[in-house]
Amino acid sequence: MPVNLPPLDKLLAVPGVLVGAAAAGIKQQERDDLVVLSLAPGTSAAGVFTQNAFRAAPVEIALQHLRQAAPRALVINSGNANAATGEPGHRDALEICQGVADALQIARDQVLPLSTGVIGERLPVAAMLDAVSRASQGLDSDNWEAAANAILTTDTQAKALSESVDLPEARVTVTGMAKGSGMIKPDMATMLAFVGCDAAIETSCLQAMTREVADASFNRVSVDGDTSTNDAFVIVATGSAGNKPISGPRDPGYAEVLATLRAVSAELAQRIVRDGEGATRFVTIRVAGGAEPAECLAVAYTVAESPLVKTALFAGDANWGRFCMAIGRAGLPALDPGRVNLFLNDVCVARGGLMDADYEESAASAVMAQDEYEILIELGRGQAEEVVWTTDLS
Amino acid sequence: MPVNLPPLDKLLAVPGVLVGAAAAGIKQQERDDLVVLSLAPGTSAAGVFTQNAFRAAPVEIALQHLRQAAPRALVINSGNANAATGEPGHRDALEICQGVADALQIARDQVLPLSTGVIGERLPVAAMLDAVSRASQGLDSDNWEAAANAILTTDTQAKALSESVDLPEARVTVTGMAKGSGMIKPDMATMLAFVGCDAAIETSCLQAMTREVADASFNRVSVDGDTSTNDAFVIVATGSAGNKPISGPRDPGYAEVLATLRAVSAELAQRIVRDGEGATRFVTIRVAGGAEPAECLAVAYTVAESPLVKTALFAGDANWGRFCMAIGRAGLPALDPGRVNLFLNDVCVARGGLMDADYEESAASAVMAQDEYEILIELGRGQAEEVVWTTDLS
Repeated sequence: MPVNLPPLDKLLAVPGVLVGAAAAGIKQQERDDLVVLSLAPGTSAAGVFTQNAFRAAPVEIALQHLRQAAPRALVINSGNANAATGEPGHRDALEICQGVADALQIARDQVLPLSTGVIGERLPVAAMLDAVSRASQGLDSDNWEAAANAILTTDTQAKALSESVDLPEARVTVTGMAKGSGMIKPDMATMLAFVGCDAAIETSCLQAMTREVADASFNRVSVDGDTSTNDAFVIVATGSAGNKPISGPRDPGYAEVLATLRAVSAELAQRIVRDGEGATRFVTIRVAGGAEPAECLAVAYTVAESPLVKTALFAGDANWGRFCMAIGRAGLPALDPGRVNLFLNDVCVARGGLMDADYEESAASAVMAQDEYEILIELGRGQAEEVVWTTDLS
Repeated sequence: MPVNLPPLDKLLAVPGVLVGAAAAGIKQQERDDLVVLSLAPGTSAAGVFTQNAFRAAPVEIALQHLRQAAPRALVINSGNANAATGEPGHRDALEICQGVADALQIARDQVLPLSTGVIGERLPVAAMLDAVSRASQGLDSDNWEAAANAILTTDTQAKALSESVDLPEARVTVTGMAKGSGMIKPDMATMLAFVGCDAAIETSCLQAMTREVADASFNRVSVDGDTSTNDAFVIVATGSAGNKPISGPRDPGYAEVLATLRAVSAELAQRIVRDGEGATRFVTIRVAGGAEPAECLAVAYTVAESPLVKTALFAGDANWGRFCMAIGRAGLPALDPGRVNLFLNDVCVARGGLMDADYEESAASAVMAQDEYEILIELGRGQAEEVVWTTDLS
C-alpha cells in the first residue's frame, strides 16, 4: 500500500554508463535479478556502505576494490544478500566480479559487487555467471528501467528518476535508481541505490559529495528502525559531459551538481519511505531550535521510531502525549520541556510543554487524517534544524 | 492475549503497611482508581524513577519529598498521568498530597504521589480528594488485591505476589504489585511498581538495593521500546519484622532480603511483559560472552527492540539473518561476526557467524512455535552475560 509513490518517469541515459539486466533465477525464475553497469574509462566512483558488523561479503569487497582501483563496472543482484556466508561467500562474490571482468575486459578489482535479499544462503554462482554474460551482451545506455526493476526485492514498484542541470560549458545528466521498502534508518538499511552522472568530478571530491548527499537523503529516512548487512549507495561520475573536472566546493559547477545529486537521492530516499511495508502515511518530522544538528536528529529519530508514535500516526490519533514522551526520552541533556512547542502542519498542539490554549483536537485530527503531513517540534535551545521522513506502522 | 500470565495468588499482609482503595471516577466510573498506602513510623523508602525529560509532576514531587522527609504514605492513581500539565499539574499533585496528609495526620512532604494514565490532562482534584478520604477510612492490611486492581490501566489483569524469607531472628514478608502492559524498556516505562516489606533496612542501604533490584527486574524487560513520563518503582521497608536493621551488604539478612525483593520484582517485571499489548510469546534473550555487561545489554536490547526480529518471533519464522542483522547494528566496537554463535533453546542455529553445519530449519521452527523460549547469543569476547525478557509484535 505505497503512499503516493509516483510512477516511473522517462529515465535519461547517462553518457558513459551502459546498463544490462538478466535473469539468473536467484530467487524467482523468469525475472531479471542481475544488473551489470559498465562505466567509461576515467569514471570516478564513491560509496557509502552499511555500518552493520555483520556486513555482507559484497560490501567488504566493494570497499576493498574502491580503495585499490578505479571502478569500471558494478554487478548488482537481488534475491540473495550473500551475508553471513563467511569465506565461501567472499569467494563467490569474487567469482562474480571475475565473470564481469572477463566479459568487459577489465580487472577483477575494477568491479564493485552489490547484493540484496535473503541472508545466510550461498549465491548460485554458475547461474549468475551465465546471467552476467547475457547482461553484458545486452549493455545499452537506455536500459535503466529494466535495471531499476531487476534490483527490487519486496518493493511494490521500481524507483528511479533523472534530472539534468546546465553548467556554463556542459549539460550534466543525473539518473538514479534505488530499492528498499523496509528496514530503513541512518547508516543505511536494506537499501541499495546507484546514481550515475556524466559530470567530471575528482574522486576525493566525489567521496565527500557522496557522504553529504547520503546524509541528506538515505540517512534521513526511517521506516522501521532496522539496518541491514548490505546497504550501499554508490555515485559514479563518468566525465563524459566534458565539464572542467570538479575538485572541490569552490570549483564552477560544484554547487549545481551537488544540488542535483542531492535532489535525485532525496527523492529516491522518500520513495523508499513511501513504499515502506505496511505504510499508509508519509510523515515529515522537522525538529527545529536545537543546539546542534545531532540533537535535532536524535529527537527526530526517537519520535520516528517510537512504536507508540507510529501506531498513533496510523490511527490518526492526536495523542500528543506520545510525542512528548518520545521527545523526552531522546536523551538530550537538560532538555527543558517548558520550552518545547509541537505543531501538526499549522496546528499548534503544545506550547511551552503544555497543551496550547487554543488547541482543539478536531483540528489536529484533521491534519492526521491526511496521508501526508509535517510534525514540527521546536526545542527552544538554538538554531539547528533537521528533517526526517517516516511512515506510520499499521 | 497475555502469555501465561498467572492468576493472583493469596497476597500476604506486610506489617506496617495499610492499604486503601477507592473510586475517584478519573477515567471510568464505578471502578477503584485511587490507592492510599499508609506506612508505619520509622519506615524507610527508596525509589527509581523515569529518566524521561517530560517526567510528570508526581515524579518530580516524589523525588523532592523523598529527599526532604521520611515518607509515611503513597497515593497512587490510574487514569491520568498528570504529565505535561506544567505548574498547574504540579499544584494539583501537591493538593492531593495535602489531602492524604490531612487524612493521615502527617506532613505533606511525607506523601509520595504516583500517577499513570493519559498525558496532558488536569487531574480531577476534588473527586480525588474525596476518594482519598474514603480510601484512608478503609485502610486495611489485607487490601492489596483491591490496590493491585485499582492501579491498572490497559493491563488485562492485576499483577501482584508475596514471598517471605526467614532470617535468624525474624520472618520477613515481601508483597509487591505492578501495573504496565506496554511501553516497557530500561530506565522504566509506563509502569508503576510498589513493593512493601517489613524488614528493617536503613534508607541509604535500601536505596542501593532498590537500584540493584530495578536493574535486575524492571530494567530488563522490553515490550515495545518506549519509555514514559511517569515510571516509578518504590520499595518501602517498615521495620515491623523486628530484625536488626540492615545497613549494608555485610549485615546479616542483607543477601536474603535482597534476593527476595529481587525475586518478587523480577516476577512482576516478567508479568508486565507477559501482559504486553499484542504479545503472543514470551522470549528470554540471553547474551553471553560479552567483554562487559553493558555490551551484552546493548545487543540484547537491539535484538529485543528490532521490529523485524519481533515480527519474526510472532510468525515463528526462523529467519536467523534478522538476528544477525540486529546483533550487527548494536554498535559493539570491533565485533567479530566470526566468533558469534546463536541458539534457540538447545538448537544451534549459527556458529562462528555462519549457519551451523547441523542446522535444520525444522528444529528451529519447532522452538519458535512455542509460546516461551530462549534466544542465546554468544559473542565470544569475554565472560559477561545478561538477560532481557521480551515479546513478539503481532
